[in-house]
Amino acid sequence: MNEKLIFTDNAGAELDSFISGLTYAGTIVITDTNVEASVLPKFAETSDVVKNSPKIVIPVGDDNKTIDTLASVWKKLSDMEAVRKTIVVNIGGGVVTDLGGFAAATYMRGMRCVNVPTTLLAAVDASVGGKTGINFNGLKNQVGVFSEPVATIISTEFFNTLSDEEILSGYGEMLKHGLLEGDAAIDRLLSLNPLTDTAQLLGTIRDSVEVKARVVAEDLRESGTRKLLNLGHTFGHAFESFSYERGTPAAHGYAVVWGLVCELVLSHMRHGFPSALLYRIRDYVREHYGTFAITCNDYPALIHAMRHDKKNASSDSINCTLLQKPGLGLTDEVVSEDEIKSALDIYRDLML
Amino acid sequence: MNEKLIFTDNAGAELDSFISGLTYAGTIVITDTNVEASVLPKFAETSDVVKNSPKIVIPVGDDNKTIDTLASVWKKLSDMEAVRKTIVVNIGGGVVTDLGGFAAATYMRGMRCVNVPTTLLAAVDASVGGKTGINFNGLKNQVGVFSEPVATIISTEFFNTLSDEEILSGYGEMLKHGLLEGDAAIDRLLSLNPLTDTAQLLGTIRDSVEVKARVVAEDLRESGTRKLLNLGHTFGHAFESFSYERGTPAAHGYAVVWGLVCELVLSHMRHGFPSALLYRIRDYVREHYGTFAITCNDYPALIHAMRHDKKNASSDSINCTLLQKPGLGLTDEVVSEDEIKSALDIYRDLML
Repeated sequence: MNEKLIFTDNAGAELDSFISGLTYAGTIVITDTNVEASVLPKFAETSDVVKNSPKIVIPVGDDNKTIDTLASVWKKLSDMEAVRKTIVVNIGGGVVTDLGGFAAATYMRGMRCVNVPTTLLAAVDASVGGKTGINFNGLKNQVGVFSEPVATIISTEFFNTLSDEEILSGYGEMLKHGLLEGDAAIDRLLSLNPLTDTAQLLGTIRDSVEVKARVVAEDLRESGTRKLLNLGHTFGHAFESFSYERGTPAAHGYAVVWGLVCELVLSHMRHGFPSALLYRIRDYVREHYGTFAITCNDYPALIHAMRHDKKNASSDSINCTLLQKPGLGLTDEVVSEDEIKSALDIYRDLML
Repeated sequence: MNEKLIFTDNAGAELDSFISGLTYAGTIVITDTNVEASVLPKFAETSDVVKNSPKIVIPVGDDNKTIDTLASVWKKLSDMEAVRKTIVVNIGGGVVTDLGGFAAATYMRGMRCVNVPTTLLAAVDASVGGKTGINFNGLKNQVGVFSEPVATIISTEFFNTLSDEEILSGYGEMLKHGLLEGDAAIDRLLSLNPLTDTAQLLGTIRDSVEVKARVVAEDLRESGTRKLLNLGHTFGHAFESFSYERGTPAAHGYAVVWGLVCELVLSHMRHGFPSALLYRIRDYVREHYGTFAITCNDYPALIHAMRHDKKNASSDSINCTLLQKPGLGLTDEVVSEDEIKSALDIYRDLML
């Protein structure tokens, strides 16, 4: 099944129109407590599906992306007498699309779902590409399945209420997509400030989502080229986990851009990634995202987190996706602890 | 991914040989407390994989096919530092292959698994075709995914220790496969007593599994022809659920053969299924499986159970798979409550 991507400034009309073209037995909306209050009332004015569907409302936040919340969603689907032909409409950020998508993919061995991302991060990342799941045993997205929504409806109308941090977090994934796409794409992104250049921002979202969609179409299950999308994430996930452990939680896209700096350092060391562009990205990240401050005492914890990344073939090795230049990625690059420590040393120097 | 079916009288050698042909990062055995005691010691003598793999042992029985057991398996996979390339080997009956298969399909969004069924029912049904899952909210297999094992290794060496009831339960699914295959297949099965005709039984297992495998290969996700395999199961599942509710639990394959009688009655009424064969099957079922005794007071509970079957397009309709004759099935036959009551009336007359 191929996911349909719908870019619109009227999500309500597109949602109703898309659903009406399917054969189905009812719709159920999954959302969170924040989105229920901030988005649904207005959304219901333009969409009968949103207005009339029974709602399953999960508590907001990554802390609630748990097996208990998943079980409560399954229970409500069952209580609502959902059947395999019922369509789930996930309206929210990444927690909603990940957990709601997992619930839909597993209830009765699989219902269809439509994603309506309400954050920039979810629009350019979580809601596209079929990764669903929950956190488990202290590990992010440790359990889930690859299961694509039948459609993702991306509308900028939801982004007005986002905080600067939420916009920048989403933009972090867009920078990654730009690096995977090529020189023109990353140049364009580095020339914009997503907080002020709103008009230009909108076109770049579509470009960005389409980079991801093209990669996923080639390799849904991440056995090959999809690993390109992991750029910035080996270090980024480690920063993110560590930020929670030490009580200074970092937004996902922030962790990713700090991870990008480290992995572009490795890309330069190993494959000659252009240093001029590395410095430009460093400047951009430092200006807009600040620095994730670490010392060499933190290296063991960061390396431990990297060893437990899902993308590693085994806990004996740590893999990165690196870039020879924008648009030319290399997956499954096994890096040694010494290389990781060097990259972290240089990251600290660069980001001072 | 296509499931490989291996029929053998030396499962240990075949398992080791199959695994050694893969690229993987370790193996983990999932089994239950009974199989651990009754099968693994001997199996370990012929298989290094069985001997040397860490074991996850779940408590025996369908009562334990729960989200709590699933979470405990995820936890142990995590504690054992399983990675996506680790291979799970499910050794056991349907509970082990269903729950172990679901755990493998969802841990890190999907590891590969190999099934080694140790019951006849699992060999001819659960271990083949990729249906995985757990019971939830009082409903059987309410949550799960379609995910095929990379291989299923079927060996008769495990069936020596099965009870007569377990053999007959498995044979119930084989009768269903025979009916789906054609006159010669069902004739052959009705001419055998699985408890005594052991030598002939073995060849029929392979035939039976291959009927199922052919149907599944056409339609893994049960959107079309796979529904053929539901023959006997609309009534059968209702009998099974009801048998648990009233405290006289019936084995799955027994419920299926009683369901077959009802659905062949409907097949005769609607599509002229040959009455001579219906009587032969009735005789066979009554002789070997006895009668599931019901009164007309039980009809509402049975119909309620049918309404909540996963295969129904909505809870407003009840679907059956019916047969015009052996080998000629009709799926998505919507049956009315009146027809169901008539079929149950006739079942009671026939099975007296």
